[in-house]
Amino acid sequence: MLKFNIKSYLFNNKKKNKNYIKNIINDIYNYGDLSLIYYIKKIDGIYLNNINNIIIKKNIMKKSYFILNKNKKKILKELYIRLKNFHNYNYFNSWQINKKYIYGQKFISIDNICIYVPGGLIPYQSSIFMNSIPSIIYKPKKILMITPIKNGIISNLILSISYICNIKEIIFSGGVHTLSSIVYGTNYIKKCEKICGPGNYYITESKKILFGNIGIDMLAGPSELIILTDKYLNPNILLFDFYSQLEHDKNSLTILLCNNKKFLNHLYYYIYKNLNFQKNKKNIFFALNNSCLIFSNIKNSIEYINFFSSEHLMLCIKNANKIIKFIKNCGTIFINYKTSIAYGDYCSGPSHVIPTNKSCRYISSLNVEQFYKKISLIKNLKNLNLSLLSSYISKKENFFCHSYSSILRK
Amino acid sequence: MLKFNIKSYLFNNKKKNKNYIKNIINDIYNYGDLSLIYYIKKIDGIYLNNINNIIIKKNIMKKSYFILNKNKKKILKELYIRLKNFHNYNYFNSWQINKKYIYGQKFISIDNICIYVPGGLIPYQSSIFMNSIPSIIYKPKKILMITPIKNGIISNLILSISYICNIKEIIFSGGVHTLSSIVYGTNYIKKCEKICGPGNYYITESKKILFGNIGIDMLAGPSELIILTDKYLNPNILLFDFYSQLEHDKNSLTILLCNNKKFLNHLYYYIYKNLNFQKNKKNIFFALNNSCLIFSNIKNSIEYINFFSSEHLMLCIKNANKIIKFIKNCGTIFINYKTSIAYGDYCSGPSHVIPTNKSCRYISSLNVEQFYKKISLIKNLKNLNLSLLSSYISKKENFFCHSYSSILRK
Repeated sequence: MLKFNIKSYLFNNKKKNKNYIKNIINDIYNYGDLSLIYYIKKIDGIYLNNINNIIIKKNIMKKSYFILNKNKKKILKELYIRLKNFHNYNYFNSWQINKKYIYGQKFISIDNICIYVPGGLIPYQSSIFMNSIPSIIYKPKKILMITPIKNGIISNLILSISYICNIKEIIFSGGVHTLSSIVYGTNYIKKCEKICGPGNYYITESKKILFGNIGIDMLAGPSELIILTDKYLNPNILLFDFYSQLEHDKNSLTILLCNNKKFLNHLYYYIYKNLNFQKNKKNIFFALNNSCLIFSNIKNSIEYINFFSSEHLMLCIKNANKIIKFIKNCGTIFINYKTSIAYGDYCSGPSHVIPTNKSCRYISSLNVEQFYKKISLIKNLKNLNLSLLSSYISKKENFFCHSYSSILRK
Repeated sequence: MLKFNIKSYLFNNKKKNKNYIKNIINDIYNYGDLSLIYYIKKIDGIYLNNINNIIIKKNIMKKSYFILNKNKKKILKELYIRLKNFHNYNYFNSWQINKKYIYGQKFISIDNICIYVPGGLIPYQSSIFMNSIPSIIYKPKKILMITPIKNGIISNLILSISYICNIKEIIFSGGVHTLSSIVYGTNYIKKCEKICGPGNYYITESKKILFGNIGIDMLAGPSELIILTDKYLNPNILLFDFYSQLEHDKNSLTILLCNNKKFLNHLYYYIYKNLNFQKNKKNIFFALNNSCLIFSNIKNSIEYINFFSSEHLMLCIKNANKIIKFIKNCGTIFINYKTSIAYGDYCSGPSHVIPTNKSCRYISSLNVEQFYKKISLIKNLKNLNLSLLSSYISKKENFFCHSYSSILRK
């Protein structure tokens, strides 16, 4: 196993504490808009006298979409359609069965969805697509988007994408304070039923704390990638998949498995050699601490993959199809040499909001399911058997009123 | 609105504190079996020298099923089949599309499921059915059941039901300590990927704390029922639906809405009159504090129902079908006069593990979905457009390696 000898870096996570988050949540809960304004000043350094100043409505997005040049419109539309097509295959419908007695499930969309779009100097355009498009089948009454802005400059592109993705309202402020105002509601900000989308450590922690007051999609952590490769792919191509995963942020990681030592050593050399020429080398540099190259045969690699349960998995090997059936735990699989991880992040179809930190063992990446709920329906026509059954079991559980109420219905 | 004038009762919840739970979790995490034995002695008052003494394997369940008398077998089988039939309608399959490029989703069952079955002197038989049967389509590798026993007596029926429901292993110990040993695993107890099933305050709190290390179905609270009725149903029947909801436990509640004052007064009188003759009157007595009868017309009632978002909803009115489409937030709907709430609890089909405490606004009752995960698949065949798209957006997000890696794949 080849580790990268870069001086270990103390993660901020260790310093971060939950009480800080809880205090913010409590303040928002108690003082609403007032404390929201306070925290926006304190944390984002923006002075507001009115929350409405950071809320942008649909009509403004619409305008900025129409002044967008034709070519860009075309690209965005195509992206939209590609992603839409994928999620359309997840269409499930309400159903009802009329037998001796009637039962069924009513599929119904969740009312108000809030999507959290992280961002550095600008919000990530792709995250707007990836968070909102799975809702196209079960359209929520309202999609609200919250996103942090560092420099206060709002690009035309962001607004246009939001318009295409049918977002009703954008609040240009991120962080725990905005999130919790979505949960409890304020005079200016309407309550939401569910929050989707990844965020930093603070967002994830507060999502966990707030879960129960609001629905959440998943608890997202730093991004992960496992690459399983053989010697036939050009290391110079692989190199950039490796880098592109690490440039996300300092905590992201890539693990590369290969059954060829020579190839690994090549790659190892290239990774150091080209590091300096990368624009995001700072992130890559730190993220290399979490990454490694491992020499192992296919069989062990599969075991490792299922154990590690990573967010992304690239199968850059011959007849990758053959081993898919052995993969149990993984978010998204990229099959064959031609599939770059970037395709999955941006345009190929499935959402790039994928469970991390081993949680793909029990949860799926963001999809249509997250946007509807099922209401069960039961309607009894005269059916003696039903009442006998329920009265039998209920007596066993010492619930005598249950038993009696079902007998009365004979 | 008719409230019940019963001396208000101080809920234990107020006294309970999270640190107590966190300490238990930490101890289990650090000392495994040792601290599990310690807590079983401390909390359940049972002295064990070996965890295996409270673990029961499939073969023993099998035996106890075969010595069960024929009639009981028949009843259990019928229950099993009824519930199974309902969940079979939720069957979704993996899919894959071959266009310019290939994508799809692989539906795969979650490996190890742990179901928590609450219980007083005996575990609730119905909960075994309701928790395990939704897993029949995507069969987990192993279903483990944990359940508290107060008196140490294990009924033959429990074991037989567990056998029918295909449970591999039962641990006869409940509480936070057993739950957390499932999450972290010990020498005797194998880790699980997900925990399903409701529990008391302690279980719910620890589920929330442990969420992220293990998947959870939902955060269950006290049971809720809203009854919407008109004057045509005999109050003596309704009375027992009212009681049967309240006999669950002291914190459960029932709210009855009716547009007829005379009927309400009748019912109010009956509720007091018959209270003393109920076997579980203690629970009913306390639970009446949370309950009330409200006079309101249908229109307002529907608004109220959608706002309150209760676990159960009974529509004991003429043409109940007509108003179903107006119900947005609710766990399970019982339609028409003939459908007792007991049917839903025991035998009609849908699971009785239903979101409470307004969480049905964003989550569904326990169903097949909770037992599988979806792995996305992406396979690119030579497709110029894809790489152009992704490189365009990635540049906008300042992810240059992404952009480069997709261009290289041209």
